[in-house]
Amino acid sequence: MVSWIMSAGLCRVSSVLRRVSSAVCAGSARSGSGCQERLRWPPLAGDVDRFGGVTVRDFPPDISEDEFSALLRVSLSRWRSDGRVAAWLHVPITLSRLSAAAARLGFGFHHARRDKAVLSLWLGPGEDRLPSFATHQVGVAGAVVDESNGKVLVVQDRNKTKNAWKFPGGLSDLGENIGETAVREVFEETGVRSQFCSLLSIRQQHNHPGAFGMSDMYLICRLSPLSFRIDFCTQECLRCEWLDLTELAETGETTPITSRVARLLLYGLENGFQNIDLTMEQMPAVYSGLFYQLYHRRLPETP
Amino acid sequence: MVSWIMSAGLCRVSSVLRRVSSAVCAGSARSGSGCQERLRWPPLAGDVDRFGGVTVRDFPPDISEDEFSALLRVSLSRWRSDGRVAAWLHVPITLSRLSAAAARLGFGFHHARRDKAVLSLWLGPGEDRLPSFATHQVGVAGAVVDESNGKVLVVQDRNKTKNAWKFPGGLSDLGENIGETAVREVFEETGVRSQFCSLLSIRQQHNHPGAFGMSDMYLICRLSPLSFRIDFCTQECLRCEWLDLTELAETGETTPITSRVARLLLYGLENGFQNIDLTMEQMPAVYSGLFYQLYHRRLPETP
Repeated sequence: MVSWIMSAGLCRVSSVLRRVSSAVCAGSARSGSGCQERLRWPPLAGDVDRFGGVTVRDFPPDISEDEFSALLRVSLSRWRSDGRVAAWLHVPITLSRLSAAAARLGFGFHHARRDKAVLSLWLGPGEDRLPSFATHQVGVAGAVVDESNGKVLVVQDRNKTKNAWKFPGGLSDLGENIGETAVREVFEETGVRSQFCSLLSIRQQHNHPGAFGMSDMYLICRLSPLSFRIDFCTQECLRCEWLDLTELAETGETTPITSRVARLLLYGLENGFQNIDLTMEQMPAVYSGLFYQLYHRRLPETP
Repeated sequence: MVSWIMSAGLCRVSSVLRRVSSAVCAGSARSGSGCQERLRWPPLAGDVDRFGGVTVRDFPPDISEDEFSALLRVSLSRWRSDGRVAAWLHVPITLSRLSAAAARLGFGFHHARRDKAVLSLWLGPGEDRLPSFATHQVGVAGAVVDESNGKVLVVQDRNKTKNAWKFPGGLSDLGENIGETAVREVFEETGVRSQFCSLLSIRQQHNHPGAFGMSDMYLICRLSPLSFRIDFCTQECLRCEWLDLTELAETGETTPITSRVARLLLYGLENGFQNIDLTMEQMPAVYSGLFYQLYHRRLPETP
């Protein structure tokens, strides 16, 4: 699938909306498909991306819903005749009435955060080929293993109908690496400091309760302890203990995933963690100057 | 972190907005903190969730921005005195003017999709503890390995400045399993049919170009071919070939991740794929009746 890179290759068409006399018909509408509407504004100006979509970020601040409908209709007509394949509107929440007007012409929400909504409309041939927005939340748990005595740090959530031991963890913040989430959540829930060792397991679940209809990616990391004293968060946890891995692997008082990972860890403890670990390596992205983190089985040494 | 399960444990307060005479002051406002405003509607009714948040899904259809501001102010006052810790508004795109009104009282977009925006406001003590929306897009590539001759299916993207061999792949649709995306994208790009074998590698990158400011999770699967004839998508690909894994592992004409995974695959081909594979198992979720998929190193046989 071709990725739709919004931020790359933008060609500035015009950043300034020039208001013209209300008595004058929009020039482009007149010269194009005829004078369809009497408008106080020229057609909307926007950035054209390398995929042929146009993005509008500036709107007349005091325009009414009805006036904006007429303006958008003329603009769409212009964009279609210019061969644009998509239109994107970045609408500030304070101008939300424009979103209602845009919806009447076929636009829908692509996504929205805090004080801005982004609406989109596919104008090209065939079916909508616009990329979707983020579909997954990422949750991370940390299995802190004390190799000196074979114990692992586990908690029981407050307000659960069934008491079940599990590894402390929680949702990643935007921009947070998997290992960082594990270390942060373990500390917030249990008071134990630790460091990231490896990734052990990945779970994907769709229609996840609490994910607002989206999917969930849940990752379990192996951590090694830097401190041992438990000072757990009583708002979130009912109990918190260093538990024998053998006991955790055998008890019915746990979740299926925790039980599975406990058996995996037990094998690692007895036979070497290199048998169960996915190693992490930070690598530079070629074009963006950013870094990414790559996890896989340890690559065998080149002979 | 405590998960905020919107769909669970809801306590229905009232689903119907009862319009009252415009001459009568809203009863609850009058009996509560005094008759603050003359309202045509009673305070907004909503569902209360088990975390103490209230969710409003029904709005007076013909209310103006200003009238809604007044109504929401009274409703917030009521919710605060009732000890609600958060307010959620599910606003249809056609009523977007209400979002602008809500923004003036501190609400922001939590998320939006197609024809609905969800706005939120933290009412509880301390900092905002509301869960965020999905933060990751998920992309999947498929490395189709022909074990009979040591070749792997690779493509070169159209319109790239540098010719680089990579595994075919693309973004997961909402609700699509990792392996399903790999098989679908490989077929769409190359015409080759295949089946999922294992997960090989996971990359996490933040501020990913094309992810609308969100993060990217990119997973590479090992697939085995069910057909071999290439019929590649000329819109997306410039070239498509069955290439020697040895050659792919050594060439400079590839991406760092593809190169790394090629070396991993080469080792697997020579020493057994069980050395590099993360196996997948489908498991039933305990409470929801849904299924999830779990990936980790093959669990050693229990003695």
